[in-house]
Amino acid sequence: MTHLEQLITKIKTSNADAAWISNPINIYYYTGYKSEPHERLFALLAKSDGECILFCPQLEVEEVKASPFTGQIIGYLDTENPYEKYRDKFNTVLIEENHLTYRRYKELKQAFQIQNVQSIDPLIQEMRNVKTQEEINVLARAAELADECMRIGEAYLKEGVTEREVVNHIENEIKAYGVHEMSFDTMVLFGDHAAAPHGTPGDRKLQKDEYVLFDLGVIYQNYCSDITRTIAFGNPSEEAQQIYNIVKEAESEAISKIKPGMKISDIDKTARNIIKAAGYGDYFPHRLGHGLGLEAHEYQDISETNDNLLEEGMVITVEPGIYVPGIAGVRIEDDILVTHEGYQSLSSFKK
Amino acid sequence: MTHLEQLITKIKTSNADAAWISNPINIYYYTGYKSEPHERLFALLAKSDGECILFCPQLEVEEVKASPFTGQIIGYLDTENPYEKYRDKFNTVLIEENHLTYRRYKELKQAFQIQNVQSIDPLIQEMRNVKTQEEINVLARAAELADECMRIGEAYLKEGVTEREVVNHIENEIKAYGVHEMSFDTMVLFGDHAAAPHGTPGDRKLQKDEYVLFDLGVIYQNYCSDITRTIAFGNPSEEAQQIYNIVKEAESEAISKIKPGMKISDIDKTARNIIKAAGYGDYFPHRLGHGLGLEAHEYQDISETNDNLLEEGMVITVEPGIYVPGIAGVRIEDDILVTHEGYQSLSSFKK
Repeated sequence: MTHLEQLITKIKTSNADAAWISNPINIYYYTGYKSEPHERLFALLAKSDGECILFCPQLEVEEVKASPFTGQIIGYLDTENPYEKYRDKFNTVLIEENHLTYRRYKELKQAFQIQNVQSIDPLIQEMRNVKTQEEINVLARAAELADECMRIGEAYLKEGVTEREVVNHIENEIKAYGVHEMSFDTMVLFGDHAAAPHGTPGDRKLQKDEYVLFDLGVIYQNYCSDITRTIAFGNPSEEAQQIYNIVKEAESEAISKIKPGMKISDIDKTARNIIKAAGYGDYFPHRLGHGLGLEAHEYQDISETNDNLLEEGMVITVEPGIYVPGIAGVRIEDDILVTHEGYQSLSSFKK
Repeated sequence: MTHLEQLITKIKTSNADAAWISNPINIYYYTGYKSEPHERLFALLAKSDGECILFCPQLEVEEVKASPFTGQIIGYLDTENPYEKYRDKFNTVLIEENHLTYRRYKELKQAFQIQNVQSIDPLIQEMRNVKTQEEINVLARAAELADECMRIGEAYLKEGVTEREVVNHIENEIKAYGVHEMSFDTMVLFGDHAAAPHGTPGDRKLQKDEYVLFDLGVIYQNYCSDITRTIAFGNPSEEAQQIYNIVKEAESEAISKIKPGMKISDIDKTARNIIKAAGYGDYFPHRLGHGLGLEAHEYQDISETNDNLLEEGMVITVEPGIYVPGIAGVRIEDDILVTHEGYQSLSSFKK
């Protein structure tokens, strides 16, 4: 069954009449057609009777026809009201509460005389949470390409180079591997600058004996990777090296616990307890990781409050960190597939 | 008055108690702090009494403190409910109906016991529609940098080069000018491939005697440019050249009509009538242009259904096109400032 066929089965099971999918990423997931027409309406209407209609700007009709989507296409001009080009009435419609804007919600309700809306987000999350073998193959290649970025970046480190120069070099060189887009803004931070866990690379110059934090990923066939390495350039201070070793142990212990049926919160706690025991609990201010797939950050949170269980086919990041202002910022992150037996790391750059 | 002070005045005038700004671009517009924390809550609460509160992930608090924003900062951890960290009650709140998701709307309503919501979108659109001199200076530089991209791209054209190679070359070379981000995916399309007005650059090789369509822009200090040129490589067919000349005349006539007080629809019609009269009306399937600023496409539509008047300080694109499958796709686009007297083109690459 395709993702779209599964969706229609789930619409029927929910006793809804239709689903209105408006998040371009989810539209790609169900149709194989990728687009981002911004303020223009772009949506997939999937009906419980199996009929599927894609609303898109007239400009894109030819490209939709060339895509894997085989349903009806409603193209509209900027001067037309797209809702007037397909008339129907629904009692209950599933919507993406996390994506549909309040304005589109009001328009939709009126256009199809909808009586009730229900959130389809949990259902889509559950579907995207577990990857097919095809998706896993693509994610594995995306992670390999992130490893390649690390090799390119590490080889380019030299005294006086700026964070921004390293970022540019990585992003230029990885193009030769067919990568045209990074999965988020590449982060390269030097020394104590890395102590701001979401800092921005700038003109800071690399000095001897400091750590370099790389957080990066690529988009490969629409799927994302997301890895972090913190690399010593020379000999960082003893305290910085201690911090590094604690983070490395926390990451490796957390990963070793990964297998189907484990509580997600326990994975987070494994890393967090190691960091707490070492006295750095207050310096690890974020969750352990997150799901990875069509988005760099997707369902689910790998956090101490998430008691869901790991399932075979999930792909998640594990990324503990310790950030001590004035001293160092260290984070290590891998992309991990939950396998039948346990886990497999899709990323493999040395730590 | 700063943009934020103007906003507070407008909240009072609307008889609302507060505004909830959740679009990161608008948060930047009002606070000078730029961030995109994705699924995490990030919002500015501006109250009619002048108090302003920025909700952000704990990770970002230090960066907000270093930004121009001087109000209260509420940082929260992933394990905390941000709404519990600031308690208040409001009767009427202005929200961005075009941005706030249905889920955030429900959360917000409950958190602050809100009785009524009203759309703040028109008010923000009107503010962003007219640029300050400071914004115009930045937009002018962004347009110059787009001209520079065109010079880089044109100089790189040669038989056998692929669309994707030209894109990469432009994006690499423009970095030397301090450009780290394009305002949208750079488009370079050869020959009849350009007849799909939103096509994707690929491995098609440049042949003699065809047109090359470039549509590109850069982000400079958070502001966007967006220009298009269609350049003859050798001697395209007579029909393709005719099409080029029609588009060029349509663009130049439409631009010449620009001045404060003109109906926007009349600008669109000026170009559209020229294209219709030449027999290509059905091959110009999009609006003439759009507003330009913090977003590459922003309020307002330059279309034949928009009867609003041009105002001094607006910056818009003018971009007529003709796309004939199998023959050619031609579009020409400039970034135009509406001045007190008439207009000024911020982009100046030869046509």
